[in-house]
Amino acid sequence: MILCDVGNTSVDLFIEGQCSKFSAEDFDPATLRDDVYFVSVNTAFNERIRGYPNWHDLRAFIDWDKYYPTMGLDRIMVCEAVDNGVIVDAGSAITVDLMHDSVYQGGFISLGLRAAQEAYGRLSPALEMSFNFEVDLTIMAKNTPDALTVGFFAPLIEKIKGFEKTIFLTGGDARQLSHFLPEAVVVEDLIFQGMKKLIEKGVKC
Amino acid sequence: MILCDVGNTSVDLFIEGQCSKFSAEDFDPATLRDDVYFVSVNTAFNERIRGYPNWHDLRAFIDWDKYYPTMGLDRIMVCEAVDNGVIVDAGSAITVDLMHDSVYQGGFISLGLRAAQEAYGRLSPALEMSFNFEVDLTIMAKNTPDALTVGFFAPLIEKIKGFEKTIFLTGGDARQLSHFLPEAVVVEDLIFQGMKKLIEKGVKC
Repeated sequence: MILCDVGNTSVDLFIEGQCSKFSAEDFDPATLRDDVYFVSVNTAFNERIRGYPNWHDLRAFIDWDKYYPTMGLDRIMVCEAVDNGVIVDAGSAITVDLMHDSVYQGGFISLGLRAAQEAYGRLSPALEMSFNFEVDLTIMAKNTPDALTVGFFAPLIEKIKGFEKTIFLTGGDARQLSHFLPEAVVVEDLIFQGMKKLIEKGVKC
Repeated sequence: MILCDVGNTSVDLFIEGQCSKFSAEDFDPATLRDDVYFVSVNTAFNERIRGYPNWHDLRAFIDWDKYYPTMGLDRIMVCEAVDNGVIVDAGSAITVDLMHDSVYQGGFISLGLRAAQEAYGRLSPALEMSFNFEVDLTIMAKNTPDALTVGFFAPLIEKIKGFEKTIFLTGGDARQLSHFLPEAVVVEDLIFQGMKKLIEKGVKC
């Protein structure tokens, strides 16, 4: 069984505990003969795999009563991986979702690190600078890089900690965000864990 | 005495309790014969008023030991207006600053409403939408506009409330932000109040 997460630019595969990344444009679905369970936000890619009976769209496995129609599939998958906790997926956006006894409680979407940094830079050349990951977020800032870092991270981190639940951190910026959330459990393949759990549930029904 | 706040695109005047706005490009400094006390972030404008002895730069009145060298002049002025409290200036950026017994405690800079909304839209067409000012920020969201609204506002508003000090709200988006901060005191001319206090202090010395 192969798990596959198709984004707009890349295809992530999970085969026997190993992750590998490919370009979505070049990827040939015919190279995979085994059963592939996938989530995809890439409509062009979806067209290409339409003729392959071994490619199974996990969209059909989702209990849509638990989530909402426009919710990102990646977000649903990471939620499926967790029974109780806050799930923080730090990618181009940072999604924060709450699970309680396997029931989805809702969530919110913040800007990702790069998006926020670029947006500050667009406001003024004086704000074109990198975040300072060494800053103490509990102290109000007295210089510009710290003022941006505290401004972007302090409210978000306090909000996430405020749920007083186990924090699961995943996504491309998980390691960077974990500077400010040392208590969080970083799970790089959380999306694949969710996909696996969903498939197992689907088979049980 | 005339108070004047010069931005990159506009000149705001405060004359006998009345505010008026002009285009920075067209504004002729010679039209004002009275003493003008100003703050300016507009270097081209600063060149134009260099020859006018009735134009006084408030930069010279600031006690720079209290603040930091790259801090925006507008931000310093709104801080000067407040002895104790949190000052939230909601413009293109949202600056949040803390004053205690007239001593500056530091602050932070968040993105302004429009900058944040545009940054979400840049991430994905699915996130190109307006904030919902009717949402309850204490509840986790279950639709996209609410997820963006809660994502942007809930952490920031909680952080601001967490200081447990009087909140002074100013800037172009003060009224919109006050939806989520009904306890805040909205003071539209806070910058001019700060300028006036600073001038009075300067004269006393």
